Amino acid sequence: MNIPKYTKTDFETMFLTKKAKKMEIKTLQVAQQVIDDVRQNGQQAVEKYVKQFDGQVPESWIVTDEERQQARETVSDDLIQALEKAAQNIRSFHSKQLQHSRLMTTSEEVIAGQLFRPIEKVGLYVPGGTATYPSTVLMNAIPAMIAGVKEIVMTTPAKNGGSISPILCIAADIAGVQTIYKVGGIQAIAALAYGTEIITPVNKIVGPGNAYVAAAKKLVYGDVGIDMIAGPSEVAIIADETAHPKYVAADLIAQAEHDTQARAILLSTSNALIEAVQQEIDHQCTVLPRKDIAAQSLEEQGALVQVDSIEEAFSLVNQLAPEHLEIQCKEPLTLLGKVQNAGSVFLGSYTPEPIGDYFAGPNHVLPTQGNAKYSSGLSVDDFIKKTSFLYYSQNALREAAPYVDQIAKEEHLEGHARAVSVRLQDNDSCSKTSD
Amino acid sequence: MNIPKYTKTDFETMFLTKKAKKMEIKTLQVAQQVIDDVRQNGQQAVEKYVKQFDGQVPESWIVTDEERQQARETVSDDLIQALEKAAQNIRSFHSKQLQHSRLMTTSEEVIAGQLFRPIEKVGLYVPGGTATYPSTVLMNAIPAMIAGVKEIVMTTPAKNGGSISPILCIAADIAGVQTIYKVGGIQAIAALAYGTEIITPVNKIVGPGNAYVAAAKKLVYGDVGIDMIAGPSEVAIIADETAHPKYVAADLIAQAEHDTQARAILLSTSNALIEAVQQEIDHQCTVLPRKDIAAQSLEEQGALVQVDSIEEAFSLVNQLAPEHLEIQCKEPLTLLGKVQNAGSVFLGSYTPEPIGDYFAGPNHVLPTQGNAKYSSGLSVDDFIKKTSFLYYSQNALREAAPYVDQIAKEEHLEGHARAVSVRLQDNDSCSKTSD
Repeated sequence: MNIPKYTKTDFETMFLTKKAKKMEIKTLQVAQQVIDDVRQNGQQAVEKYVKQFDGQVPESWIVTDEERQQARETVSDDLIQALEKAAQNIRSFHSKQLQHSRLMTTSEEVIAGQLFRPIEKVGLYVPGGTATYPSTVLMNAIPAMIAGVKEIVMTTPAKNGGSISPILCIAADIAGVQTIYKVGGIQAIAALAYGTEIITPVNKIVGPGNAYVAAAKKLVYGDVGIDMIAGPSEVAIIADETAHPKYVAADLIAQAEHDTQARAILLSTSNALIEAVQQEIDHQCTVLPRKDIAAQSLEEQGALVQVDSIEEAFSLVNQLAPEHLEIQCKEPLTLLGKVQNAGSVFLGSYTPEPIGDYFAGPNHVLPTQGNAKYSSGLSVDDFIKKTSFLYYSQNALREAAPYVDQIAKEEHLEGHARAVSVRLQDNDSCSKTSD
Repeated sequence: MNIPKYTKTDFETMFLTKKAKKMEIKTLQVAQQVIDDVRQNGQQAVEKYVKQFDGQVPESWIVTDEERQQARETVSDDLIQALEKAAQNIRSFHSKQLQHSRLMTTSEEVIAGQLFRPIEKVGLYVPGGTATYPSTVLMNAIPAMIAGVKEIVMTTPAKNGGSISPILCIAADIAGVQTIYKVGGIQAIAALAYGTEIITPVNKIVGPGNAYVAAAKKLVYGDVGIDMIAGPSEVAIIADETAHPKYVAADLIAQAEHDTQARAILLSTSNALIEAVQQEIDHQCTVLPRKDIAAQSLEEQGALVQVDSIEEAFSLVNQLAPEHLEIQCKEPLTLLGKVQNAGSVFLGSYTPEPIGDYFAGPNHVLPTQGNAKYSSGLSVDDFIKKTSFLYYSQNALREAAPYVDQIAKEEHLEGHARAVSVRLQDNDSCSKTSD
């Protein structure tokens, strides 16, 4: 396998030049058409598209309590325990993010603050396809639950004769999802955004999906909130001569096996390490079930970059703003301060990225394609709304009045100035309609 | 003037039914064309569009230090003092929002946390037009500065022979804006997103603008962050029989004078109040400079709604999720808990909304058109990125391994499982390329 080796300059040209992330107009048009139809014709339209795209309409659109109970019988106790343990870690990490309403009294006569409220209803989209992703359910629903979201619903395409994967049912139970709908694709996003006879509309939609689902989310954004539009998964590994080539190689492969567009990049001060990693990848890939995907990803999207110093590696990585950043260097924690732009950071030789994908607690829904320069991974904050509030006494208003008057008049908004002055200019502050 | 009176049911039908907020396709197309041109041809394209849309190309694209110093001489001391006082309040309110990186050690062998980092470069768009809005500069730039953003630039169309309003220069100085560009419109957004020979690209764009600016922001979103796409301004006032009709009327008018699409709504338990407010509006409007705008807004977008109880008023308002909510009731602070969805709340008879627009401290960049159901007003958080980090010891990894293995295999990602097991299966954990 030939993973390209780049110089710093080549790497900058190929990976750090800003490229527009445009969505296919055709995909957007298809999505808009389905959305409009679902808005207009409700569940009947949903049924039509489920038949058209998935081939089969489930007997019931909602997973029944019986189905959810039966799921427990078909999944191994070990797997259930693993999910429960993971959920516990995710809950523990995210519960520390919960903030509370703030009251700030800035003077005797003014009360100000921020009211923190959970979003009322959240919808989680879980893709179908060959594999199922219980970790998606945990990572999206648990932060919503900790935020205090009252209603969390989930929607996923049915398969195998109208059923959904039992492991998704179990993950939904563990994470506190109340209702599971058997709908996938654009029609699921449209139904969550606008509601149908069966599906209650939500205020925010989260969760991954294919290009059509992403286009649908982009189109309904504004009518509901969305989490983010995620691109292919990425890892950048900064490693010095103390790193283990075996571990580095395994981590690059783990990233590359996601899909052929996934991106795995190593930046190292050690040419010996780079060469050893290249050999290790060849060696480890031979036994991998998804070796073809990983190989294509590494050859087309991967990069091995030799840098002059760790500082140079961080400079490049901060411009790349990768979804995942591993630091496999001597005393990795001392390097944390150098991280400027990254979704999530994994420190040291024994913190492989997959431990974060599933288990450790930090969220795996992270900004890709350089978006870590301005945005963050999913957290409890994404399910909280902050409403500022303000109380002024008449005295406080009197003191503020001349200043407000100056600015309002400068902005040609006389009515704004009058809303203040009307409260101060007369002595009838006690006369009310009830008098 | 005839402001429509609605029953609860009519109000629900007319104001609370979900309407899709679609952007004009034509506006998007125009915006895309200009953006593509600026991406390809840089400042030359910017110049072409400035000439085309604004008529005149400024001598220098960047406001000079001299221009910024001269601004002080043309603006009254009172106005400068008003802006400085407002900035002080805004700084005080927002500085209480600043959070710090968190370290959570969940066991002896695991270190986890969130690194909080400011966005590096932020661009602020300030619209031109007949009036200038220094408050826009303060409200957008101060939270960025408090967050620690290193570079804050601003762009606004030049007028009057290539100059920009002195008051905007002064607001920029007060708020900590380093560079001011004399460019407006779509070309300004494109230049901020992708950079030109003159304009440095930024990571996030904030600030209001017309439909073209909004379309441009929507299109560059993903390549850079944006704040929000704001709709027409709104106020809902919940008032009981203790409210002053004069004050309520003044506040409805202040909202309505923004533009003909602005929305001002009164919900009251008192029919006497509603009638007195209606008379007051007629009376107060006669002397208002922008009375035609206010009258059209109130007649077409306004509503007076009599409700049976304060609870009913809150139920309607929480479904509306207005940008601004005034509570002019007896003991207004005791009603704060009833607020579920609103951008910003103004409590009591002496807290008119304009005091928040300019002066008090809370941000005036707020979600409109029901978006307060899932989003919040601008805050320091909008300029902060949260990067999670994780450190596992080999022991911690060993304990976690069986669980990660279970989930990875369920998700058909064998390479993920191996990234863990490769670190545990052999005794060569000390062999490194440097050995």
